[in-house]
Amino acid sequence: MIETDILIIGAGPTGLFTVFEAGLLKLKCHLIDALPQPGGQCSELYPKKPIYDIPGFPEVLAGDLVDNLMEQIKPFQPGFTLGERAEDIEKLEDGTFIVTTNKGTKHHANAVAIAGGLGSFEPRKPQIEGIENYEDHGVAYMIKDPEAFRDKKVVIAGGGDSALDWSIFLANVAQKVTLVHRREEFRGALDSVEKVQELVTQNKINLITPAEVTDVKGSDKVESVTITIHDEAKRFQEIECDAFVPLFGLSPKLGPIANWGLEIEKNAIKVDNTLDYQTNIPGIYAIGDVNTYPGKLKLILCGFHEATLMCQSVYQRMNPNKKYVLKYTTVGGIDGFDGSRKEAEKAVIKKIGS
Amino acid sequence: MIETDILIIGAGPTGLFTVFEAGLLKLKCHLIDALPQPGGQCSELYPKKPIYDIPGFPEVLAGDLVDNLMEQIKPFQPGFTLGERAEDIEKLEDGTFIVTTNKGTKHHANAVAIAGGLGSFEPRKPQIEGIENYEDHGVAYMIKDPEAFRDKKVVIAGGGDSALDWSIFLANVAQKVTLVHRREEFRGALDSVEKVQELVTQNKINLITPAEVTDVKGSDKVESVTITIHDEAKRFQEIECDAFVPLFGLSPKLGPIANWGLEIEKNAIKVDNTLDYQTNIPGIYAIGDVNTYPGKLKLILCGFHEATLMCQSVYQRMNPNKKYVLKYTTVGGIDGFDGSRKEAEKAVIKKIGS
Ligand SMILES: Cc1cc2nc3c(=O)[nH]c(=O)nc-3n(C[C@H](O)[C@H](O)[C@H](O)COP(=O)(O)OP(=O)(O)OC[C@H]3O[C@@H](n4cnc5c(N)ncnc54)[C@H](O)[C@@H]3O)c2cc1C
Ligand SMILES: Cc1cc2nc3c(=O)[nH]c(=O)nc-3n(C[C@H](O)[C@H](O)[C@H](O)COP(=O)(O)OP(=O)(O)OC[C@H]3O[C@@H](n4cnc5c(N)ncnc54)[C@H](O)[C@@H]3O)c2cc1C
Repeated sequence: MIETDILIIGAGPTGLFTVFEAGLLKLKCHLIDALPQPGGQCSELYPKKPIYDIPGFPEVLAGDLVDNLMEQIKPFQPGFTLGERAEDIEKLEDGTFIVTTNKGTKHHANAVAIAGGLGSFEPRKPQIEGIENYEDHGVAYMIKDPEAFRDKKVVIAGGGDSALDWSIFLANVAQKVTLVHRREEFRGALDSVEKVQELVTQNKINLITPAEVTDVKGSDKVESVTITIHDEAKRFQEIECDAFVPLFGLSPKLGPIANWGLEIEKNAIKVDNTLDYQTNIPGIYAIGDVNTYPGKLKLILCGFHEATLMCQSVYQRMNPNKKYVLKYTTVGGIDGFDGSRKEAEKAVIKKIGS
Repeated sequence: MIETDILIIGAGPTGLFTVFEAGLLKLKCHLIDALPQPGGQCSELYPKKPIYDIPGFPEVLAGDLVDNLMEQIKPFQPGFTLGERAEDIEKLEDGTFIVTTNKGTKHHANAVAIAGGLGSFEPRKPQIEGIENYEDHGVAYMIKDPEAFRDKKVVIAGGGDSALDWSIFLANVAQKVTLVHRREEFRGALDSVEKVQELVTQNKINLITPAEVTDVKGSDKVESVTITIHDEAKRFQEIECDAFVPLFGLSPKLGPIANWGLEIEKNAIKVDNTLDYQTNIPGIYAIGDVNTYPGKLKLILCGFHEATLMCQSVYQRMNPNKKYVLKYTTVGGIDGFDGSRKEAEKAVIKKIGS
């Protein structure tokens, strides 16, 4: 059982910044995310694109914003359960919660902050009969640890940035990379498309287009895939491989959270915006894109504010008899849970002689 | 008469970021501030200190945050009335407002955003009889344009960062700088104290401590000051000068805004936090440190959120029949009023051949 003060569901920008604000109040956080990496939409959908409306950044790449947030929260040592979906919640008699993931990992917390964005990112899967039997046995819809593919034969399917970028990356890790796409045209950043072209020319990527993987074979694990080539002859090609990675994009689904007894409106969780972004269940909060209230804007900077006010409420919940006094970070400094300390240089009082 | 869509009172971080969010909605802004420079508390009180809780910045100097915000809002060409205090407000029959400063500058706007922080920064003045007659005639409590002191003889009084920093700066601009402080010890950043010591040793700053300026003389403008030296003999010294600049710190006062008919609670303006941070007078909003509502935190990041929601409300006020559709900056880009355009690189759709 993982124990924490605030269990955060969703490691997007909102969930990440929550760790910082909680840390200032000496509350520990643990995050669950269905994705293998933190950053939510920023990391998954547009890591290399600039955002212009983060206050204080005339321009920042979404991926850099996530890196900065990870750096900012580091002193507060958040825990992560990545690649798992929060599935069930149970409220104990003492008012605390147990949250269990689809893989059975259990988390016990005093408060739950749902920072689930548009929902848990779930992969679009290809229509191949029996493919589910190979999931985790050679078939993967996201790449959690590229090292798992070292010296393996990998078939990647897809025509967007993920398929391009992972083909490039794995070209230097795997024994063999085959990239299959149903069109001859790819859609992605210009330099990714050009890099793949270069690797194809150098025979470091085996490109098969226009084509589709239509079958997966193997006894207990993937041993080969069948590729149907969309030419006039409709030829088939059998490719031996250890792994098949269809990268057709991830789409967010509110999923199991929708059945937790929370008030839902237009696929979002209703919260009390007049105070602390708490849901109809005391102790469960919803912040960032996942919540709704009159005038709600699904913007990153709004999630930051909501997270900050929410942490105050959790603090009061956990310390009902303490009066909280806000201390500026500039004045109080930052005391990390790792023993680190950051603080402004103090003014000196010093005699000047003539 | 200065014409604008949103008149912002206070050019602190909240007021500055408002310009950006308004700009996205094609609304023009003009800012009034009593201080000679933008940035509010950040610029005036702690420009060289690090802030740790601006989301995405593990650490940022308050002065750099202000510089970044100025850079971010540049495309939206805000107007500034600096060094003047907003004094009076009048609501016209058509629901628009005229705001007049203590120097008589008039501004006409559709909506007013009070982002006045802890209030208008007002200088602490020395107790010298008749000093008010010399204000703007040699006596200044803030330095708006250091060039005004070129080749002049200046007497600065004070023992903190402002007195130290301006003495250092003017040592290379003015003909003569005299620094007077009632103690021998100065309080400030270590390198400022050391730099002043160095300039004193080099005879570039004439230091008189422990002492006080006790009289100002001159026919229509400052011609000399009398300095009382706090030694046993209580000697007096007459110093010829063109300017006398007492830098005893600025303290914020809500001031005239308190009499505008707004609901005030604990020196702050009550707003509707359930929607748009509007005050009890429709069309007048209060955002940032200056407002209050249940759970209010006087933090910079909260001001950013409040500014953003407020701009939506002003947009609706000005365009009652238009339905606003939020467009991400990453997707829509930024169209500056100066004709500039920023946008993310588009994905390409490109054939890859084998
Ligand atoms: C192309 C694009 C451009 C954008 N541009 C801008 C912009 O310019 N400015 C701006 O402010 N915003 C922009 N946005 C929106 C911005 O990305 C979102 O507002 C922001 O990501 C919301 O952050 P969040 O942390 O609330 O949620 P998300 O970033 O959506 O993160 C939520 C995370 O929760 C996880 N999750 C959900 N449910 C579960 C569960 N049950 N179990 C485990 N994990 C779960 C998801 O997998 C996800 O990783 C843009 C979005 C897109 C798609
Ligand atoms: C030492 C110190 C450390 C701090 N550290 C942090 C920190 O770590 N994190 C954090 O989030 N916050 C911190 N703060 C607080 C932060 O600076 C404020 O929250 C922030 O400045 C508020 O911004 P604002 O724009 O609302 O108001 P302000 O910055 O106060 O700006 C308001 C401006 O309005 C002007 N004004 C007011 N009335 C009038 C009028 N009638 N006419 C003309 N001008 C007027 C004032 O002159 C002022 O310039 C700190 C503050 C101090 C003093």
